[in-house]
Amino acid sequence: MADEVILLDFWPSPFGVRARIALREKGVEFEYREENLRDKSPLLLQMNPVHKKIPVLIHNGKPVCESMNVVQYIDEVWSDKKNPLLPSDSYQRAQARFWVDFIDTKVYEPADKIWSTKGEVQEKAKKEYIEALKILESELGNKPYFGGDNFGFIDIAMTGYYMWFEASEKCGNFSIEPECPTLMASAKRCLQRDSVVNSVPDPEKIVEFAFKIRKIYCV
Amino acid sequence: MADEVILLDFWPSPFGVRARIALREKGVEFEYREENLRDKSPLLLQMNPVHKKIPVLIHNGKPVCESMNVVQYIDEVWSDKKNPLLPSDSYQRAQARFWVDFIDTKVYEPADKIWSTKGEVQEKAKKEYIEALKILESELGNKPYFGGDNFGFIDIAMTGYYMWFEASEKCGNFSIEPECPTLMASAKRCLQRDSVVNSVPDPEKIVEFAFKIRKIYCV
Repeated sequence: MADEVILLDFWPSPFGVRARIALREKGVEFEYREENLRDKSPLLLQMNPVHKKIPVLIHNGKPVCESMNVVQYIDEVWSDKKNPLLPSDSYQRAQARFWVDFIDTKVYEPADKIWSTKGEVQEKAKKEYIEALKILESELGNKPYFGGDNFGFIDIAMTGYYMWFEASEKCGNFSIEPECPTLMASAKRCLQRDSVVNSVPDPEKIVEFAFKIRKIYCV
Repeated sequence: MADEVILLDFWPSPFGVRARIALREKGVEFEYREENLRDKSPLLLQMNPVHKKIPVLIHNGKPVCESMNVVQYIDEVWSDKKNPLLPSDSYQRAQARFWVDFIDTKVYEPADKIWSTKGEVQEKAKKEYIEALKILESELGNKPYFGGDNFGFIDIAMTGYYMWFEASEKCGNFSIEPECPTLMASAKRCLQRDSVVNSVPDPEKIVEFAFKIRKIYCV
């Protein structure tokens, strides 16, 4: 029996896109279901009763929640398929998890404030965002990807932010590339991959969306 | 050559204790090094330059940081030893990671405020803490441990909070057991395990420590 794979998602989500990319890296067929986050579907509420958030991967009727947990699950379940996402070595795997945790705290928090605040709070967020990106740039070093020669777990976590770079820059009126040229080069490389091209929305649409929600938060 | 395993830790830490317990569950010999968090050792700053936090597991000279990442690393590296901590099934593993993430956000945040705040902020934190514990109690169901018949990944994550239950109750002037009797029964079961008894400090010392730092935060 073929696997039934459904993804509950929301198109501009930097978290949802991680699940989309992981599924496409693995060549897993899936049904994409767009959620209206202002009127969540009964299925979403049933499948993620604790957080009521996307993405939710429903694999043969069973839900997996939290984006990087979904990515790790995909990597484990479809391990016989192409493109391993996590390294096989335990130490390297621990390092990958460490950096993803860093991204989900130290990148997430300022990134979120850049589009949702203004004035001093936004200035502080921009500074913290660049600081976090510089730490990541230093970890990236001369490698094409965080995963070395291969696009991997950390790259997937970051691609959600890469696809928001333009919107973040426009909302915050600043430039990332002069501060983090090597990271930006890796971001461009990631954004050109087939799995990513097929998963991320048009950057202009994200910019438009960001300014729309910014209006609501920054009245 | 025998493994060299060093743990940089701080005795009342609910995070540090997770690493201690995991090592003892696996029967791994290790050298415990107490850190003075007001005057961190050069080794801690060198081994965890990003967060500068304990616990850090140093395995043959290489650091692993972030408590549950350390526990997962220990489970993977000493997989030939007794007591697997994460389930072998990918779906169950994803569920375990989901709940640990829940603990590290929804339990951590109010728990931290109970000892460090007073008045309305503390009252709100107590309410949120009990709500989070009730969700966990519902997930626990009738099982002796979150890991089913075996003490596992989620149980280790929670034991850091179990050892602080008495201090939380005394700082917040409330009782957990009437609200969450099944969770409390599992907590007592966890606290009686050899690996835990040998890893957690005397509860009275934690109460004393909690009131000491409470004085600094709640002037």
